Amino acid sequence: MDSQQFRAAAHESIEDIITYFDTLPTQRVLPTVPPGYLRPLIPSSPPTDPEPWSAIHSDIESKIKPGLTHWQHPNFMAFFPAGVTYPSILGEMYSAAFTAPAFNWLCSPACTELETIVMDWLAQALSLPGCFLSTSENRGGGVIQVTASDTVATMMIAARERRVTEMVVAEGLAPDTLEYEDRMMELRARLVAVASNQAHSSTAKAALLAGTRFRSVSATLEENLEMTGPRLREVLEQCDRDRLVPYFVTLGMGTTNTCAVDRVREIKAVLAEKEHWRRIWVHVDAAYAGAALVLDEWRELAAEFGEGVDSFNINMHKWLLVNFDASCLFIRNRHDLTSALDITPAYLRNPYSDSGQVTDYRNWSMSLGRRFRALKIWFVMRSYGLTGMQAYIRKTIGLGETFAGLVRERPDLFQIITRPAFGLTVFRVLTPDAKREDVEGEVQVEEGEEGRVRVALPDEACNELTKQVYELVNAKGEIFITSTVVAGVYAIRVVSANPAAEEAYVRRAFEVLVEAVGEVLKD
Amino acid sequence: MDSQQFRAAAHESIEDIITYFDTLPTQRVLPTVPPGYLRPLIPSSPPTDPEPWSAIHSDIESKIKPGLTHWQHPNFMAFFPAGVTYPSILGEMYSAAFTAPAFNWLCSPACTELETIVMDWLAQALSLPGCFLSTSENRGGGVIQVTASDTVATMMIAARERRVTEMVVAEGLAPDTLEYEDRMMELRARLVAVASNQAHSSTAKAALLAGTRFRSVSATLEENLEMTGPRLREVLEQCDRDRLVPYFVTLGMGTTNTCAVDRVREIKAVLAEKEHWRRIWVHVDAAYAGAALVLDEWRELAAEFGEGVDSFNINMHKWLLVNFDASCLFIRNRHDLTSALDITPAYLRNPYSDSGQVTDYRNWSMSLGRRFRALKIWFVMRSYGLTGMQAYIRKTIGLGETFAGLVRERPDLFQIITRPAFGLTVFRVLTPDAKREDVEGEVQVEEGEEGRVRVALPDEACNELTKQVYELVNAKGEIFITSTVVAGVYAIRVVSANPAAEEAYVRRAFEVLVEAVGEVLKD
Repeated sequence: MDSQQFRAAAHESIEDIITYFDTLPTQRVLPTVPPGYLRPLIPSSPPTDPEPWSAIHSDIESKIKPGLTHWQHPNFMAFFPAGVTYPSILGEMYSAAFTAPAFNWLCSPACTELETIVMDWLAQALSLPGCFLSTSENRGGGVIQVTASDTVATMMIAARERRVTEMVVAEGLAPDTLEYEDRMMELRARLVAVASNQAHSSTAKAALLAGTRFRSVSATLEENLEMTGPRLREVLEQCDRDRLVPYFVTLGMGTTNTCAVDRVREIKAVLAEKEHWRRIWVHVDAAYAGAALVLDEWRELAAEFGEGVDSFNINMHKWLLVNFDASCLFIRNRHDLTSALDITPAYLRNPYSDSGQVTDYRNWSMSLGRRFRALKIWFVMRSYGLTGMQAYIRKTIGLGETFAGLVRERPDLFQIITRPAFGLTVFRVLTPDAKREDVEGEVQVEEGEEGRVRVALPDEACNELTKQVYELVNAKGEIFITSTVVAGVYAIRVVSANPAAEEAYVRRAFEVLVEAVGEVLKD
Repeated sequence: MDSQQFRAAAHESIEDIITYFDTLPTQRVLPTVPPGYLRPLIPSSPPTDPEPWSAIHSDIESKIKPGLTHWQHPNFMAFFPAGVTYPSILGEMYSAAFTAPAFNWLCSPACTELETIVMDWLAQALSLPGCFLSTSENRGGGVIQVTASDTVATMMIAARERRVTEMVVAEGLAPDTLEYEDRMMELRARLVAVASNQAHSSTAKAALLAGTRFRSVSATLEENLEMTGPRLREVLEQCDRDRLVPYFVTLGMGTTNTCAVDRVREIKAVLAEKEHWRRIWVHVDAAYAGAALVLDEWRELAAEFGEGVDSFNINMHKWLLVNFDASCLFIRNRHDLTSALDITPAYLRNPYSDSGQVTDYRNWSMSLGRRFRALKIWFVMRSYGLTGMQAYIRKTIGLGETFAGLVRERPDLFQIITRPAFGLTVFRVLTPDAKREDVEGEVQVEEGEEGRVRVALPDEACNELTKQVYELVNAKGEIFITSTVVAGVYAIRVVSANPAAEEAYVRRAFEVLVEAVGEVLKD
């Protein structure tokens, strides 16, 4: 494809992309294709000779689009949003054109330096404490990773190395001996990573990747599925009794199931109780809800989750207008990371890196090469401005409140399970004959409410009904939602917060749910 | 930015990108900016109010471009190429528009299914054995990862789990007991990953990430820096003596320093010698040179490196016309991977995944979410066709031969260090008074040559001169090259194989080197 052919193809593609977004609301959010739909449509072997763009282009329309789940559709209310915006697409275009696997500064200074600058911008936008700025005295800084999953794994590996190294050094062993290596291995085998059972599964997966043990802290519906200090203490004390060494804890700011916010103040107090607990690496997973920190009203939360922790992660690619991937990690002491991950062979040496004057992001992640993702973040933050980002977050939080309000208005049909938060509502369907004492406990879930919403008790009939309603709604395919199971309660999650979200869709989604309840109950 | 603003901005950006490529040869390949150049040019805080695209656009030209290292420049001859082509850029555009973190089939069927199909295409294009096809009886398959680094780490973790699990199961321990967990930990601590000292540093880093030991196998210049069977056997036997368990070996097909090809046949014979060596996971790192397998003349090599191994990795984003990231992994038994990495919580359950009818790529990698990278591979393979890909690889291998030929014609100035391969030439500069017996050993490096090129002996004066020439060339900045140190010999690497490479640039690069030698010697 020469530049003339590209010119024609690219301009056509731009129009195609605009049309895609403009016509999205008229499409089905979920595709109807069965598993394996694509294989019969595509030759089983690659073509011998070049094909013209026109052939490829028409296949996008006829073969690819029918198989897309439209995450940008206003009726996408599943999981968490993963938005894309026009300036972000422009960022991807330039990033591709400037392709450079910028593993060190010299491999593309602009790529490295812009990343440092926009991460400092983001830290400020989120009102994170100054310790996370690249200019901080404590050697903090931000870096773009692929996902929250590889981020937590990377943090855990850095924490593992920091912990075993300090223990081995305290024992006076000399590096580069077999004795030292053996002892490192013995100590690694005693380490335990800890998180709430409401933490994203990536923390448990990270412990597996890092080859260490994992213990989960129970969170209860009575406590709104938040990890509390006392429950964390129980697990840490059990580790002590088992002669295991807790070295890592993930704190959730907006958990995946219900957007619960772990009780950070009391957890930090517990971690301060024992000398060896103070050495636990504290990682904050604010992958989705961290975006809310752009609002002034959450400043206190930003301080609580930012101070006294080792690392803080937010995915701009969820709720902050930058498309996947843009998982932003802030770390208090970048040397914790680079001293664990730096392996510099001769072919990566250069005077700039050797001088220590520059940042080599390859030592901040598991991957060596990296894309120029700072561009799209820069484009988005400038195109929206802080006020634009705030307006978007405020609007979508409002949509969540609207939806939760609709759910509350039908206590005959629905029961809210946890406090609606950050645009997410988690609720279940009540069977018509459900008795209040069977489905509601004493504890109030929503403080300050009229007292109607109390803690949900597990109930088989409600679980079954909720599951049927959930499955019917997704089978109809007008909206796409997710379900989950929390503390024995089968629940539906609704969150409408991608850039196309609008109140009309949220209201219609509620109608769809009510209709589905009617249909299931009729059968 | 609304659709009208995007239309204007995007069309302008397309023209900008075309102009970038068209005018690249007139630019300097390396930027001249000093470390920290960008910070004074950009506000220290994000803007409060939205900025128009025109402001952002003009900053790309004035602030970003001056800080780019141009990997697509015809004078980029450093590291390995990391190319981008027009159809690949189109793939990135559509991928951004269709943004979906497609962690399971339902999250975007087209994204998952096209990936399976294009990985099958690529396996065929490379003449890999049928065991790597998704349709194979042995449950093989391909998957796109981010880089060769996270790929080898993922493979090592899967190998670690496969090995310790089979040992624990053989001991009859029951899962989900503390005894089982303790034993898993003890066994993990005995594991050793092995690779040549010429393997990419990512293998040693992967062992660190996986928390296992690492032992390297010496490769010598007499053996063209290829890992041999006997030298691997020595290391494995030492592990046995130390009561350690070798569980993973990386075989290089085209090592980073010199494009050496490990002696796969004799290595496989060694691994077959003992029962517990047969259980070692064999991973092939063909990140760069794997692209050469599109040529029929390398079919035998594809068979040798494909048969009897557990995993095979090639980065299309190096030498196969698809931009970063497109690290393609083929695995013989995908269950080795998914049984190690699958952690499925309630919110990721769905009827399609539960049925086992579909592929959920989240269990094939450390990251949960993933981009729609199959699109760009599909676009490139169709736009070029097999014949186009072959022509490109053949042409760039020819450029390497031309360059190596020029080096050979000046034995008064240069000495080739290892057999030129896959477009890469590795050589050093000889001091005018170097005596042949001081710089050349008996062993011939290039078989079938006139006997002129014998093994290089380390020489301080040549090392110093080569380093000075290398630094002068890069300081001048007309071409960008890399140096390395192999077996005590400081050497220059030249490889010109990105999509813009042409013979005239390779010939000029040689002149630049000759001129630099003259300048350094004059001083």
